[in-house]
Amino acid sequence: MNEEGSRSPLQAAARADAERFGKPEAGWRHKTYIVIFEADTRAGKRFDQWLIALILLSVFTVVLDSVAGIRAEHGSTLRALEWVFTAIFTVEYLTRLACVRHPLRYATSFFGVIDLIAILPSYIAFFIPEAHLLIDVRILRLLRVFRVFKLTGYVAEYSALGEALRASRRKIAVFLSFVFMVVLVMGTLMYVVEGPANGYTSIPMAMYWAITTMSTVGFGDITPQTEVGRFIASAMMLLGWGVLAVPTGIVTTEMAAQRMSRPTTTRTCPECLTEGHLPDANFCRHCGVRMPRYERDPGA
Amino acid sequence: MNEEGSRSPLQAAARADAERFGKPEAGWRHKTYIVIFEADTRAGKRFDQWLIALILLSVFTVVLDSVAGIRAEHGSTLRALEWVFTAIFTVEYLTRLACVRHPLRYATSFFGVIDLIAILPSYIAFFIPEAHLLIDVRILRLLRVFRVFKLTGYVAEYSALGEALRASRRKIAVFLSFVFMVVLVMGTLMYVVEGPANGYTSIPMAMYWAITTMSTVGFGDITPQTEVGRFIASAMMLLGWGVLAVPTGIVTTEMAAQRMSRPTTTRTCPECLTEGHLPDANFCRHCGVRMPRYERDPGA
Amino acid sequence: MNEEGSRSPLQAAARADAERFGKPEAGWRHKTYIVIFEADTRAGKRFDQWLIALILLSVFTVVLDSVAGIRAEHGSTLRALEWVFTAIFTVEYLTRLACVRHPLRYATSFFGVIDLIAILPSYIAFFIPEAHLLIDVRILRLLRVFRVFKLTGYVAEYSALGEALRASRRKIAVFLSFVFMVVLVMGTLMYVVEGPANGYTSIPMAMYWAITTMSTVGFGDITPQTEVGRFIASAMMLLGWGVLAVPTGIVTTEMAAQRMSRPTTTRTCPECLTEGHLPDANFCRHCGVRMPRYERDPGA
Amino acid sequence: MNEEGSRSPLQAAARADAERFGKPEAGWRHKTYIVIFEADTRAGKRFDQWLIALILLSVFTVVLDSVAGIRAEHGSTLRALEWVFTAIFTVEYLTRLACVRHPLRYATSFFGVIDLIAILPSYIAFFIPEAHLLIDVRILRLLRVFRVFKLTGYVAEYSALGEALRASRRKIAVFLSFVFMVVLVMGTLMYVVEGPANGYTSIPMAMYWAITTMSTVGFGDITPQTEVGRFIASAMMLLGWGVLAVPTGIVTTEMAAQRMSRPTTTRTCPECLTEGHLPDANFCRHCGVRMPRYERDPGA
Repeated sequence: MNEEGSRSPLQAAARADAERFGKPEAGWRHKTYIVIFEADTRAGKRFDQWLIALILLSVFTVVLDSVAGIRAEHGSTLRALEWVFTAIFTVEYLTRLACVRHPLRYATSFFGVIDLIAILPSYIAFFIPEAHLLIDVRILRLLRVFRVFKLTGYVAEYSALGEALRASRRKIAVFLSFVFMVVLVMGTLMYVVEGPANGYTSIPMAMYWAITTMSTVGFGDITPQTEVGRFIASAMMLLGWGVLAVPTGIVTTEMAAQRMSRPTTTRTCPECLTEGHLPDANFCRHCGVRMPRYERDPGA
Repeated sequence: MNEEGSRSPLQAAARADAERFGKPEAGWRHKTYIVIFEADTRAGKRFDQWLIALILLSVFTVVLDSVAGIRAEHGSTLRALEWVFTAIFTVEYLTRLACVRHPLRYATSFFGVIDLIAILPSYIAFFIPEAHLLIDVRILRLLRVFRVFKLTGYVAEYSALGEALRASRRKIAVFLSFVFMVVLVMGTLMYVVEGPANGYTSIPMAMYWAITTMSTVGFGDITPQTEVGRFIASAMMLLGWGVLAVPTGIVTTEMAAQRMSRPTTTRTCPECLTEGHLPDANFCRHCGVRMPRYERDPGA
Repeated sequence: MNEEGSRSPLQAAARADAERFGKPEAGWRHKTYIVIFEADTRAGKRFDQWLIALILLSVFTVVLDSVAGIRAEHGSTLRALEWVFTAIFTVEYLTRLACVRHPLRYATSFFGVIDLIAILPSYIAFFIPEAHLLIDVRILRLLRVFRVFKLTGYVAEYSALGEALRASRRKIAVFLSFVFMVVLVMGTLMYVVEGPANGYTSIPMAMYWAITTMSTVGFGDITPQTEVGRFIASAMMLLGWGVLAVPTGIVTTEMAAQRMSRPTTTRTCPECLTEGHLPDANFCRHCGVRMPRYERDPGA
Repeated sequence: MNEEGSRSPLQAAARADAERFGKPEAGWRHKTYIVIFEADTRAGKRFDQWLIALILLSVFTVVLDSVAGIRAEHGSTLRALEWVFTAIFTVEYLTRLACVRHPLRYATSFFGVIDLIAILPSYIAFFIPEAHLLIDVRILRLLRVFRVFKLTGYVAEYSALGEALRASRRKIAVFLSFVFMVVLVMGTLMYVVEGPANGYTSIPMAMYWAITTMSTVGFGDITPQTEVGRFIASAMMLLGWGVLAVPTGIVTTEMAAQRMSRPTTTRTCPECLTEGHLPDANFCRHCGVRMPRYERDPGA
């Protein structure tokens, strides 16, 4: 993905952040910024690795806590661990706010919001004890799980994936709306044909069944009981087959286009200016002149 | 998707409609036509947006009315709303008929028919009170849901999708007939091996199960109970895997072909303005004039 | 698929048949051969259309006869119809044998065998009345369904599909053996982990479940009950996702290769002999010379 | 896949093995090595065929032994056969170790380990009779099934498949981590919304359900019971649809790239015998010599 002269997407993102949040010029704030927000120095890399480990551990704690058996045995240990994590993440969050020049901009950015909702639940549960109802606690635990999305900031491929999605967003929106229309009409059809007695209790329920069927998941909690219903279901399954092909086509075409624009674009013959030579070519295929060596770009 | 000099598919469709239905020359009919049928003016755009909102709202009403709980509570409100929508759509329909010169042609066009079946149900239910049997009312509600297809007229990509499908229609027909034959033979095989006692009560029922299995939906309402049956089912699942690949291949190849024919769009012959030359072309393929060198176009 | 100078695959097949079976030179046998085996004359085309209709009708009869309700009401009618069809197909079969010069070669060919097993069942059921046990009759009916494969002789795309499959047969065989190995090992693993008590009664049963899971059909008749089992099942589902991509890749690549070799291969500039011009080019893109008109090949 | 002048992947692997394990120079060890480790001679090929047959037979024995009915009838026969196989494979293993110069290197290689765990179980069961508990025996049988992976050494395509996977490993890792994150968050969401009463007893259980749903397997052992749950499930099924497209895109692009780099294989420079030039090349890219015009190669 790298071509001569360009920086990695992560470094590009780091520079954008530095401008937006306001990287300090000097002092402890500057040193802290370099460690926390950037990964060029050894300390910066260390910090990132520890943070990833902490995030994974804290999420694992939440997951373990949901298993009734484990909660019964180690519940108090897990809750203590949870407070430790909350404390660490709180310190990290406040430090981040402290060492940028425009703290509000960080607080309102994507990762800033995630950082906040990663530590809020424990405090809410602490200050509003009545919120310790079973349902609220479960919702609060949910929010902690969002910490895991901080990991995407460390991997370059996610920007590539995000870009591919952004490029196709209009096609995807049209495709989704088409699916919605088909699901609505087919669902209503089945609601009329089968009726509430056979499980299709309302049009939304029938639409849920239609999505289950067309996406080929097929739970089987609701199934057609009439012959006409089975016939319509068969047609929907074949249609789902075809519709399934469309997002596959979109994604594959996008990836193939990215792939095919790579290998032959960078080399230009100094004589006849022909482009698109194979990576291992020593001579220009058009005029036969010798060409300089090719440094292959790394990465997939 | 737009190339210099050509109109968007929506405008092309609008011009075709104007010819077919007979756009009036002057007077209130001309002004009304521009607002209702075309989207070039501000009033025309406004009208379209209101219409889309009304269509979505009316469909939402139908969906809500099917949920037993909501119908019990707000049934009368929903029915009143339904009459309001019917009235609005009736006025719109009659205005459309009134402001074209060939009303019959509009009434028999695709959207004309949808407009009609979108308002008929309420009138049928009103004038034939005995038709208020539960089944009839449900069928009438179904027809209203077809209003949602009017939305496809607003989005250009649907014509692209329609064209891709039309281009591959013979391949699709052959594929479907092949699937039908395999489903028929495999279904009969399972009917013989398993028999009605195990759920395969007839060949059509076995064919329904075969489609369920080969499309990988797998409801589980019918499952093979004999070892031979399970063996045949395993073979069918692997076959379904391969067969699933075919429509994906058709769609992906079609999209890739459309995609790859595009890098030829950026080059325009200075003489005859023809677009879409091959990247390495030196001469225009239409008029033979020499063309400037090709700079690779960025972006997808 | 057609290029200037070549005949359609159907005609090529017809010529091959004529050589193999021995097309008669003159007399009523020659006239009959032209009608039955070839489709160039109006009578030949008529014959083919009637035969297709009869095949579809007879298969439809078999399907209807399997539905208990319909058999109870119209059983005798269906059986009478079945005898009519058997008679017609017998006459057709005997005529085919009579009007070729090497009847044995036809009788042993693919379609010859299908013709025979299409009429045998009724005679077997007639001459061996004890064979009227429920199971035997069902098996006999199965054989009649094979008539439907005669229809593939009429459609050119099936040869294309057959060729694409034959070209990839080694890749397909390797893929299938790989799937078999994974299913065997995973199935054994689940048999050990879950055990017969949870439904995994033997390794073959566990392999059936493994195919159900990896092909994403997921009947649900057998499901993992232990946590380790669920973990292994999750890994298998993700693996199945990836494995599903392979046949899709094989088929798509094959279709794309066929597609991309078409548009630009046939045209050659008379001056500079450059090949691969776009279908609508009037001037050679290399030397600017005018080129003769291009007749586009029909078909998808 | 073979190009003029290069050896097949199997022979390349054989040469690598000879160097690593130490092929003996002379004597009975040399003769034995040629038969066991290489397949160039008739004896070598014979040996390989017999070994494949024995492997398949021994695995088949394990599979049959798991079916309760067959074990009851033929249990002792199967166990005797198992000892025969164990004896044969032990002799083969010891011979392999004896006829290489660095036996330890073979014992620690991939196939060396598989050979060992293919024969160990029977000995463990023999020398530690208390290990004849039902569970242990089943685990021991599992290990024997790994013999089947020895077959992959005989087929060239597996190296191709392995290479394609190795090339995309980073993309695959990123994709899997993304899936893990989505499954974690969606699973937690459903755990909160539905709760243990509806089957979602813990977050790991909910994650298992999420994988079942997003991979479109859809067992149906756990299904959403609340309307919010069904809505979230619908969103997940549509998301799964899109996510399913990604590995398909990776694999297809990889296969297409391999495929499209092949049309360059037929052209050979008369001077340096380099193959694989671009179709429109006039000069060899290796030595700069002028090359004859390109005739398009037929076939895939």
